[in-house]
Amino acid sequence: MNTHIQTVELAKAYRLINHGPTVLVSAQFQDDINVMTAAWACALELVPAKVSVILDKATKTRQLIEKSGFFVLQVPTLKQLKLVQALGSISQHEDPLKLEHCNTPLFQIDGFGVPLVEGCSAWLICELIPEPHNQQAHDLFIGKVVAAYADDRVFRNGHWYYHEAAPEWKSLHHVAGGHYYTIGDAVDAASVDV
Amino acid sequence: MNTHIQTVELAKAYRLINHGPTVLVSAQFQDDINVMTAAWACALELVPAKVSVILDKATKTRQLIEKSGFFVLQVPTLKQLKLVQALGSISQHEDPLKLEHCNTPLFQIDGFGVPLVEGCSAWLICELIPEPHNQQAHDLFIGKVVAAYADDRVFRNGHWYYHEAAPEWKSLHHVAGGHYYTIGDAVDAASVDV
Repeated sequence: MNTHIQTVELAKAYRLINHGPTVLVSAQFQDDINVMTAAWACALELVPAKVSVILDKATKTRQLIEKSGFFVLQVPTLKQLKLVQALGSISQHEDPLKLEHCNTPLFQIDGFGVPLVEGCSAWLICELIPEPHNQQAHDLFIGKVVAAYADDRVFRNGHWYYHEAAPEWKSLHHVAGGHYYTIGDAVDAASVDV
Repeated sequence: MNTHIQTVELAKAYRLINHGPTVLVSAQFQDDINVMTAAWACALELVPAKVSVILDKATKTRQLIEKSGFFVLQVPTLKQLKLVQALGSISQHEDPLKLEHCNTPLFQIDGFGVPLVEGCSAWLICELIPEPHNQQAHDLFIGKVVAAYADDRVFRNGHWYYHEAAPEWKSLHHVAGGHYYTIGDAVDAASVDV
């Protein structure tokens, strides 16, 4: 495994998505693997760390999560923009070779049977907390974070370093139709004189 | 009302928060008004437009929403950084004059009995969809967007113009402890050659 990938303590896992990035959602059931893009993911609880993500009923990834009970939220970077857009545009139901066609590099972490996308800046491995009402009525899936990791070139000691890292590490924030903003400048409420 | 504030069609209301900004949540019950900062807000459905927001049981704003059945999510700007931090740090339970002490400028829109924060870039007026389980177990509140507005200096024709507007209009994305990032540069998946 890439030696830059470091464990993030679970109490600080929320910080990996607190700034509202568009994420990649990955899951695996037996030999079936998929990855999709999702803008509607959010922290839900600090301790135990929980997250929520909206998964449309038409998505293959949702089916894999329902069967396996696990998923990964990962934070892609500006360098992965084309991959992020492709993984959010193509359905594996229509293109069974979606992951190959998108050139999706995957890896695994010992102890977890879930696929992770290489090159992202952070990963949250989540165990589904089954909630049939939320899943059916709202397409809302809740997961307990069981492990979290980040690339220490852009997140370390519990903090993002977007303002020091190369621009290619910036997170992506989808608006609509393939239009994104990157994350911008660091600002500190304590140091601003308004 | 500020003539820059324009109606946003409900089918595009999700775009106001799709990029994951930290928001201000406001609510009113009778003469009681409060505003709090929340990083954990998210779009939930396109049509009818719905949103979710996490509201801790200790917050006064949550009580006002439970009583009134309405709330507003609004997108604050870099110019409001100190206000955003203060509204997220002080509880009205401890400081009944919180809004005055934070110099919180409020206005109303005819037809809605909810307080809106002046100077924000966008506002989503929401009717609570009561879900006792989500509210009790997850502090998760779901709202149907009944009206949406944006300041046309930074959002118009269904699109954000952060890349053209003055920097003071940028959205804020909280990480932790008063540290934020602003929204950054526009990138278009179709035009990037990776």
